[in-house]
Amino acid sequence: MSKYSSYIAGNKERMLDELLELLRIPSVSADSDYSEDVHKAAGVVAEHLRKAGADNVEVASTPGFPVVYGEKIVDPKLPTVLVYGHYDVQPADPIELWTSPPFEPIIKKTDLHPEGAIFARGACDDKGQFFMHVKAFETMMQNGGVPCNVKFMIEGEEEVGSANLGWFVERNREKLSCDVILISDTGMIGPDQPSITTGLRGLSYVEVKVTGPNRDLHSGLYGGAVANPINILTQMIASLHDEHNRITVEGFYDKVLPVSDEEREGMARAPFSLEEYKKALDLSDVWGEEGYSTIERASIRPTLDVNGIWGGYIGKGAKTVIASYAEAKISMRLVPDQDPAEITQLFKTHFEKIAPSSVKVQVTPHHGGEPYVTGIDHPGYRAAASAMSQTFGKEALPMRSGGSIPILSLFERELGAKSILMGFGLDSDAIHSPNEHYGVKNYFMGIETIPLWFEAYTEEMK
Amino acid sequence: MSKYSSYIAGNKERMLDELLELLRIPSVSADSDYSEDVHKAAGVVAEHLRKAGADNVEVASTPGFPVVYGEKIVDPKLPTVLVYGHYDVQPADPIELWTSPPFEPIIKKTDLHPEGAIFARGACDDKGQFFMHVKAFETMMQNGGVPCNVKFMIEGEEEVGSANLGWFVERNREKLSCDVILISDTGMIGPDQPSITTGLRGLSYVEVKVTGPNRDLHSGLYGGAVANPINILTQMIASLHDEHNRITVEGFYDKVLPVSDEEREGMARAPFSLEEYKKALDLSDVWGEEGYSTIERASIRPTLDVNGIWGGYIGKGAKTVIASYAEAKISMRLVPDQDPAEITQLFKTHFEKIAPSSVKVQVTPHHGGEPYVTGIDHPGYRAAASAMSQTFGKEALPMRSGGSIPILSLFERELGAKSILMGFGLDSDAIHSPNEHYGVKNYFMGIETIPLWFEAYTEEMK
Repeated sequence: MSKYSSYIAGNKERMLDELLELLRIPSVSADSDYSEDVHKAAGVVAEHLRKAGADNVEVASTPGFPVVYGEKIVDPKLPTVLVYGHYDVQPADPIELWTSPPFEPIIKKTDLHPEGAIFARGACDDKGQFFMHVKAFETMMQNGGVPCNVKFMIEGEEEVGSANLGWFVERNREKLSCDVILISDTGMIGPDQPSITTGLRGLSYVEVKVTGPNRDLHSGLYGGAVANPINILTQMIASLHDEHNRITVEGFYDKVLPVSDEEREGMARAPFSLEEYKKALDLSDVWGEEGYSTIERASIRPTLDVNGIWGGYIGKGAKTVIASYAEAKISMRLVPDQDPAEITQLFKTHFEKIAPSSVKVQVTPHHGGEPYVTGIDHPGYRAAASAMSQTFGKEALPMRSGGSIPILSLFERELGAKSILMGFGLDSDAIHSPNEHYGVKNYFMGIETIPLWFEAYTEEMK
Repeated sequence: MSKYSSYIAGNKERMLDELLELLRIPSVSADSDYSEDVHKAAGVVAEHLRKAGADNVEVASTPGFPVVYGEKIVDPKLPTVLVYGHYDVQPADPIELWTSPPFEPIIKKTDLHPEGAIFARGACDDKGQFFMHVKAFETMMQNGGVPCNVKFMIEGEEEVGSANLGWFVERNREKLSCDVILISDTGMIGPDQPSITTGLRGLSYVEVKVTGPNRDLHSGLYGGAVANPINILTQMIASLHDEHNRITVEGFYDKVLPVSDEEREGMARAPFSLEEYKKALDLSDVWGEEGYSTIERASIRPTLDVNGIWGGYIGKGAKTVIASYAEAKISMRLVPDQDPAEITQLFKTHFEKIAPSSVKVQVTPHHGGEPYVTGIDHPGYRAAASAMSQTFGKEALPMRSGGSIPILSLFERELGAKSILMGFGLDSDAIHSPNEHYGVKNYFMGIETIPLWFEAYTEEMK
């Protein structure tokens, strides 16, 4: 119970209805059929900020979808917090796998959400989570005001790689100047175990093509005498891991920073059942780099995964063909201080080097993203740990996520501020998948926690 | 010049027109839209046999398309030859790649066919080649009769795996009884280099599936901690060849019969340019089992090729997914005395054995085929070598083909007779591909050669 609890309790119904209303707008940024809805969502968000008490609210246009801005400057001498989030959502397909229409939010109980969860595209990622900040802001404004300066930057292109956010940030450094960036677009370890994401992995993504003969060949007449591009590709990919499941690309690990024992111990204290993990995925065994736990393999260690592979005849029945070429999409998750551009180059050099003379090899880079980490000694982290511990009544733990939010490095570079990832979602919330949902309790825990974070952070900065 | 040459020369136009007429019938056995045409072709073939002088000609029905039978028994004490061929053809698609309509035969000159080649589906495989036997039969009948007994068995399902030929042969052992089977459904080494195919490879074809997690996973959140089915599949496939490009499946080579030095020397004398071979396929280097030549690798040695592979995201752009499963089609070409069923079982056992505990593996067998070989000491082979040498004025060489004609083993088992593969096609005739063609010269060389084979064979059997 905090000084904000009664206000939140008194406005529970409305705060929930407002979110459901926002979820009814299919603001799918990846599909141009929905661009009108994306613009509509931006307008609705701006209106909510105004009503909540923000000043200078604007729907700032960019070469893509607009960025919604708003602020409350109470005292230039006080610290300034920039709240970042996004109002756009992932496409809903495969639509047929949804048990209820993705843009007609309904509340259903689940094992992990006995108080009910909101089922809708964007419920957790990120409408439900950024809207907590709008409601928390309203709550503070209605209960003595914000303890420090607040700025909002809610974009509409996160699900398509924040294509124009960099463009916007570079042109608005002054307006966006801040001491810290607060984001709720990640998850917690468990429903009752608060945690703060201290690191995200970077990404290097390449497409490879191995070409053999200049045309498909009859496997009877040529089999055994010419290199089969599919066989060669499998050999090349297989050689990218050694017997300890370490990546063999030369120089791959050179810049990997060791993680402090303190943080590894913190991670080890996180409640985690390997049995349940395997059971949930129907695996008889896990896999990974020798010398690291499953949690560490999925967060603080770099990886190399084939995301797609194709070549030859993939229809029904049997066709005796030797394909002219085979292709694969390969991504590497990176950790501090690996540089995506450098890793991509190392991969290209290595992959071309291991190609036998019987084939030609082509490596095409896709977008990348830098790894990101915020130390547990950052005042914003300490504020988050304190705030979450109060509302959950349990110590908040640091946690590394295996995912990537490439834009964070840009924020740090352009605004000189670190990002605090205080998320309230769960891995099981099915973001990017059918039946995405977000716990009603998580939503309100967020609205309760955020004002406490502002208070704690302001204290930390005194 | 033989005693048949003037007759053939005198009827050249008609013999060519009759073939073109047959080629106009789209007897595509794989596509039910054409079944009427397949039956029509059978009737036309029967009519030609009758006109040529065959007795007891019938269009014998089977559970599938009919088998055309005809015979000329001149003396029970003389040897009997069974001529086998097929009147059905491959589908014409991709139709758009044909430079002229596949069922409107036209004669065009090519570099390899300066006298002109017949462009049409089935021109070489096998209408053009089996019809040579009908015309050669007519020629013999018009010039003193056949030197021994002849039987014709022309089927209509070869391009769909001779589904019902076994059924027909088992029910007509008496009628089909013979001393040797003569077939023109293969090729020669070169336009001026006659050769006789002494061996064909067998086939074992399997489909494999490697399953990891029970659903597609986010490669950021799970990457590095769970086995990626695509990575695992590539490792398993890569391990199927060792550093000498020998197949590692346990017991795979146990039953491989050594090829006689005499035959290997014969093969080595075949005109073959590795440079031209590489140039034609745009390869900087060939590949294959250590210790064998390219020709040997493609004919007398067993192989393992991936014919198709697929898994994960294969669309445009980048998707960071870990697929739930990955699949591949893998075929093995077999040589005497490897048994397809046994090899398939050896593969299944081996593949399941090398699968790591972090995945599940499924191996599904497709159809197989037995390898086949006819020794160069067989009277039918000697007759072919003698006949071809006369018409081509050059010694005919033995040659192994890497392809498979599974039905030959059935003939040997059911009729106790070996098959002589005296083909007149060229690798470049594009059978099964767009713009299939057959040299006009090859067609008439066949009609000239076949009667000489009958004389030589009858002599051999005295």
